[in-house]
Amino acid sequence: MNGHYIKEPWSIIEEGFHPGMQEASESIFSLGNGLMGQRANFEERYTGESLQGNYLAGVYYPDKTRVGWWKNGYPEYFAKVLNAPNWIGIDVEIDGVQLDLHKCEVVDFRRELNMQQGYLERRFTFVNKGKKLHISARRFLSMKRNEIGVIRYAVKSEDFSGTLSFTPYIDGNVVNRDSNYDEQFWEMMDTRSGKNLAHLKARTRKTGFITCMTMAYQLCLDEKILGPEVEVSERSDYVSNRVSLELEAGQEAVFLKYVSVLTSLNHDQEKMHEEGEVILQEAVKLGYAALFQEHSAVWENNWAHSDIIIEGDTAAQQGIRFNIFQLKQTYTGRDERLNIGPKGFTGEKYGGSTYWDTEAYLIPFYLSTAPEEVSRNLLVYRYKHLQKAIENAKKLGFNQGAALYPMVTMNGEECHNEWEITFEEIHRNGAIAYAIYNYTRYTGDSDYLAEYGLEVLIGISRFWRQRVNWSDVRGKYVMLGVTGPNEYENNVNNNWYTNKMASWTLSYTLEVLEAVMESSPGAYDEIKKRTGFNFKEETGGWKDVIEHLHFPYDEKKGVFLQQDGYMDKKQIMADDLDPVERPINQNWSWDRILRSCLIKQADVLQGIYTFEEEYDHEVTKRNFDFYEPRTVHESSLSPCVHSILASRIGMPEKAYEMYLRTSRLDLDDYNNEVNEGLHITSMGGTWMSVVYGFGGMKIREGMLSFEPRMPEGWKGLSFKIYHRGCTLKVSIDKSKVKIENLVGGDTELLLCGSKVELKAGRMVFADL
Amino acid sequence: MNGHYIKEPWSIIEEGFHPGMQEASESIFSLGNGLMGQRANFEERYTGESLQGNYLAGVYYPDKTRVGWWKNGYPEYFAKVLNAPNWIGIDVEIDGVQLDLHKCEVVDFRRELNMQQGYLERRFTFVNKGKKLHISARRFLSMKRNEIGVIRYAVKSEDFSGTLSFTPYIDGNVVNRDSNYDEQFWEMMDTRSGKNLAHLKARTRKTGFITCMTMAYQLCLDEKILGPEVEVSERSDYVSNRVSLELEAGQEAVFLKYVSVLTSLNHDQEKMHEEGEVILQEAVKLGYAALFQEHSAVWENNWAHSDIIIEGDTAAQQGIRFNIFQLKQTYTGRDERLNIGPKGFTGEKYGGSTYWDTEAYLIPFYLSTAPEEVSRNLLVYRYKHLQKAIENAKKLGFNQGAALYPMVTMNGEECHNEWEITFEEIHRNGAIAYAIYNYTRYTGDSDYLAEYGLEVLIGISRFWRQRVNWSDVRGKYVMLGVTGPNEYENNVNNNWYTNKMASWTLSYTLEVLEAVMESSPGAYDEIKKRTGFNFKEETGGWKDVIEHLHFPYDEKKGVFLQQDGYMDKKQIMADDLDPVERPINQNWSWDRILRSCLIKQADVLQGIYTFEEEYDHEVTKRNFDFYEPRTVHESSLSPCVHSILASRIGMPEKAYEMYLRTSRLDLDDYNNEVNEGLHITSMGGTWMSVVYGFGGMKIREGMLSFEPRMPEGWKGLSFKIYHRGCTLKVSIDKSKVKIENLVGGDTELLLCGSKVELKAGRMVFADL
Repeated sequence: MNGHYIKEPWSIIEEGFHPGMQEASESIFSLGNGLMGQRANFEERYTGESLQGNYLAGVYYPDKTRVGWWKNGYPEYFAKVLNAPNWIGIDVEIDGVQLDLHKCEVVDFRRELNMQQGYLERRFTFVNKGKKLHISARRFLSMKRNEIGVIRYAVKSEDFSGTLSFTPYIDGNVVNRDSNYDEQFWEMMDTRSGKNLAHLKARTRKTGFITCMTMAYQLCLDEKILGPEVEVSERSDYVSNRVSLELEAGQEAVFLKYVSVLTSLNHDQEKMHEEGEVILQEAVKLGYAALFQEHSAVWENNWAHSDIIIEGDTAAQQGIRFNIFQLKQTYTGRDERLNIGPKGFTGEKYGGSTYWDTEAYLIPFYLSTAPEEVSRNLLVYRYKHLQKAIENAKKLGFNQGAALYPMVTMNGEECHNEWEITFEEIHRNGAIAYAIYNYTRYTGDSDYLAEYGLEVLIGISRFWRQRVNWSDVRGKYVMLGVTGPNEYENNVNNNWYTNKMASWTLSYTLEVLEAVMESSPGAYDEIKKRTGFNFKEETGGWKDVIEHLHFPYDEKKGVFLQQDGYMDKKQIMADDLDPVERPINQNWSWDRILRSCLIKQADVLQGIYTFEEEYDHEVTKRNFDFYEPRTVHESSLSPCVHSILASRIGMPEKAYEMYLRTSRLDLDDYNNEVNEGLHITSMGGTWMSVVYGFGGMKIREGMLSFEPRMPEGWKGLSFKIYHRGCTLKVSIDKSKVKIENLVGGDTELLLCGSKVELKAGRMVFADL
Repeated sequence: MNGHYIKEPWSIIEEGFHPGMQEASESIFSLGNGLMGQRANFEERYTGESLQGNYLAGVYYPDKTRVGWWKNGYPEYFAKVLNAPNWIGIDVEIDGVQLDLHKCEVVDFRRELNMQQGYLERRFTFVNKGKKLHISARRFLSMKRNEIGVIRYAVKSEDFSGTLSFTPYIDGNVVNRDSNYDEQFWEMMDTRSGKNLAHLKARTRKTGFITCMTMAYQLCLDEKILGPEVEVSERSDYVSNRVSLELEAGQEAVFLKYVSVLTSLNHDQEKMHEEGEVILQEAVKLGYAALFQEHSAVWENNWAHSDIIIEGDTAAQQGIRFNIFQLKQTYTGRDERLNIGPKGFTGEKYGGSTYWDTEAYLIPFYLSTAPEEVSRNLLVYRYKHLQKAIENAKKLGFNQGAALYPMVTMNGEECHNEWEITFEEIHRNGAIAYAIYNYTRYTGDSDYLAEYGLEVLIGISRFWRQRVNWSDVRGKYVMLGVTGPNEYENNVNNNWYTNKMASWTLSYTLEVLEAVMESSPGAYDEIKKRTGFNFKEETGGWKDVIEHLHFPYDEKKGVFLQQDGYMDKKQIMADDLDPVERPINQNWSWDRILRSCLIKQADVLQGIYTFEEEYDHEVTKRNFDFYEPRTVHESSLSPCVHSILASRIGMPEKAYEMYLRTSRLDLDDYNNEVNEGLHITSMGGTWMSVVYGFGGMKIREGMLSFEPRMPEGWKGLSFKIYHRGCTLKVSIDKSKVKIENLVGGDTELLLCGSKVELKAGRMVFADL
């Protein structure tokens, strides 16, 4: 746990250079704009420890799988998030000395991630033979023109005179640290370097994605544009333009680098050079100040709609903004081919772009903070992968159109290969079904069911039906050999959460079937034909499972049991552990973790959270009191659920502790792994812990319901919610809650348990 | 399942060349002599599919581990059995055509593994432009001089005239197919090639084992020794001598290649060249015929002591001889540093040299067929690894001298990395304890306990004590998260066999403790000091576990349950499977295998077999009837146990079916994998199924007991047994059993339930 970044409401600030934290800081200070993103690597050369990373949305590589012992059913390839050619580089030489923070003497180092305006800035003083130069480097990836990135690199001499040179470059010789066989993922196609324009075009091996990057520069001395001699370099995988100038004491040289980054997802490969040049020239013509202006205007608008304001708690305020900022950087919802990878544009670990995180943690965020189409796109994305999910299930021995969605995917195919996860962590299928329910109940868009939803539900229900088996000794259906959300148990029987998800999916599918048969008989017939659905036989089987599925339960304690045999474990509590043993996944052998009762992430509680309508305060509290002390929260997806439940059952201190843990997970590096990248997908959970937890939002019969419970130390909390055409602003203080209907027509909602009408443009209050 | 080899009592014969079976045949026809061994690769060039393999006992390489997802506790290295420089090569050119069975026209192909005399021979006719040459190639690895290998390569012209050349070589450019990162495991040190003597010296990377191979040749035409011109080749990793002659119709050219193979395990590296040359020259001087004579004499002696004669069933006879032949080729018991790898010298798969197979399946074989020292050496081998086993347990979080022996090892360190095996298949620890019991009860060598055995038992017992935990809900100790011998279940709770092994080890250790305290108080004090043993506290804990350990049991069926929850599975029988789905490990996804009730190998039955004194006929039969139909025998270690139990409970047909399956596992390739090498360690199980099963041998109070039950179709069965200084010959026919005391003093035994005295040189009979 680091926690050394300065807590400002709108910025993340590091003061003093901490080389040992460099990779962690590279993650924290990452930038993105939905189409591309990058870690906060330095522009100038840096020979210290660093994880270089520059990523392009939707561009991936099927890296040959690496396994210890092959198991039947494993996929051959793992779609990796690709480290793309590096376009941020600017080598800086000062009187023949290469600027390199690993080797040079540097003082007054400060870096800032400004979330309000969306830029990254570094300032430091370079001391060269007793002479000082003040350097400040700012960059942003335009949110307005998302194929443009801009760097402003300023060097101001205090008392130095001599030669200063800048060598901006694009370098295609990049690797993925997590490449399985140290293969090169890119092949170079073309490099061209002119006096003030250089291109690099490269193609991914196997997948054939192409990127074309084009750069231009401007060099100014004390605000006067220079036109210096250029030394042009061009190799097969590298282009650069080197320029020099003489700098006197007191003078400031400013180097501006403009880059356009295009990919073949959006451009015809034949025209990429030309189009890249046009896009770049437009940007150069507009100039740095105007580009920054239009970029920061997008952020202003984002914040106007999505900001959460916490009064009286800077750490909490900074935390929630950091989460929202990163989510908005990663996914803008404009492109239905994209999804949200677990590390976004901040690292390469895990690979793939789509996990169950999207359905369980991000759909709620986008439902409330973005137009309906964004969530719908995310759902349609899965619909388009249905055939692959059916093939995936077939590989595991299922048939008749049973669908198992992959654990990790880029294009619908399974990427992951750990048998206990790939084959057994099947609750993911339930999250995909639940997202359909969640979307339709929130938006009221029931057409979605006939158009796409039902077909997905049938595939998933068929899977559940085949995945259970009848146990004679119990006289029940059982589900054997699964891994629940708590991945610190593998290959268990009757994981309560998974069984709950299965049973719920079957019931919901029956409900949707009836609704679609009623409302859209034509669509139903089409679906029946496409899927070979046999109503009587199949629904009969589903009903049988719903009625007779086994759920482990401890009578004495009155709690749902995570799985069969959970109570046989030695019951130790997370707080009993010696702090040096935590996180246990870095200190205990795997079998010890599996044997222990310690829980990586919410499992039974995930189910109680998901189906909150079914469980009253007593049941929720009993299960929370039982499981919370056993949970080590070594998954980023855990504390948010505990925070929300703690809010609901009136444990505000616990809720607040868990909230800090989720919202500051990366900033404070709770699990000692932020160097690998940020936990992007869990950031939706952070948002949920504020809105669902402290805001007390629920959905009841299509209405929003609010029962706020603000943490003790907060003076105020406010946020905005999109819901069925309305924009509501919720403002909470110590004594009351106010809800304003800012945009949209009249609506109804539940406020602290009472139904209230909220006319367009009006507001309602309730005392707390 | 192939089964296309001809069934002869003393030979394995293939008639007609089957290129598609080449790798399988290379395994089947392997040769070895305890110190080195090799697959039956061709001497002349072969460009078809082939797995080249030449192995040196005790020479290994720590290949960097390959895993998908790293788990804490995994070893960094996997000690691999090394493919060593190839010394068998002789390129043959006939009128400028390179002889290559993949490309040339060949008729009348026949190869034979002669087990009686221990050689491999191929004969075939090469048709070149209508002209015929008859080729016969025989080779053996001397059992007498185990650093010498000899090849006799004869080419007889029928109607061909022209040039014939031979190029014998040693080639250091070899690879392991299962190398994890395609690394070269060898580095070349020195090559020297003279007119008729060539050396190659190479060192393994990291481990620094050195081999020095030296070759010489003789060329004869119609029995006249020639002294032709030699073309010498010498590269950094290759040496050869090329000689040619003119061959006329009717003439026969015979090329003899002699090779000495030395390793630094047995020679000072500075003197290897000279010593290799001396050893080689002695062999050359002796000449081919005499070398073969002394070699086959060793085999004659081996067979005189170890042969099992089955009358009236050639397939069964060939099967058992093949097993004994391979065991005797692989391990001679002369070198205490060696152990018996699962593939012996016949393939590179699995790596490591030592598995629990040694204790469970091979100690019984060597106890009865070799001097006591051989088994004792195998036990001491584990004693010497005790500290490593304690370190291994420490890595997994155990302490106070608890020892967990590795799943796979070469030097005592764990090599294997699949969490469900490495960390959880801990019953191996029990097999090591049991071997101590088995050895001492068989030999009466109770000194072993004070000297070595007790210390190992304390380490293992401490492990078991720490590995169980108290379950409040059951009021019992439980053992969670294990994998039993049946590896088609992973991470289960309370595997009956493992719990049985644990409980038995604790009891046995208590017994040995008392015995050693009584008999060797000085030794006991030493052990106490070395291990920090606390008698009262530790034995108290052990007794508590013995008393309260949970054993899953099905009351209704009266069977021990393989693990908790086994009866929840869908109860399908192996015979219900569609034959195309078998073996299931090649056709089902891993999760499907895990969920099924199908059993890879004897598990509960392994326990009932091991502790047969504790279970009466009824219990044994009930469990056998329950588990046998659920067992797919996809481990080589399975059918032998089922065969023995079937014999005991009076199911002779089943016993015979299982016997054929174990004894002809590789010959008939039941599991479709013989191409990877032979199942060497299970061959001890085959021997057990004859001697313990059909011979009905048991050990009772230090005496041998026989209750033969010969299969229906057999006319006679006889075998010899070493026991406490006596050599007994057991001969069984339809009506009676005869036991002769061939060598040694007077003894007592149990014959068909009655105690009989058997004086030196006498015999006893019993009717059947």
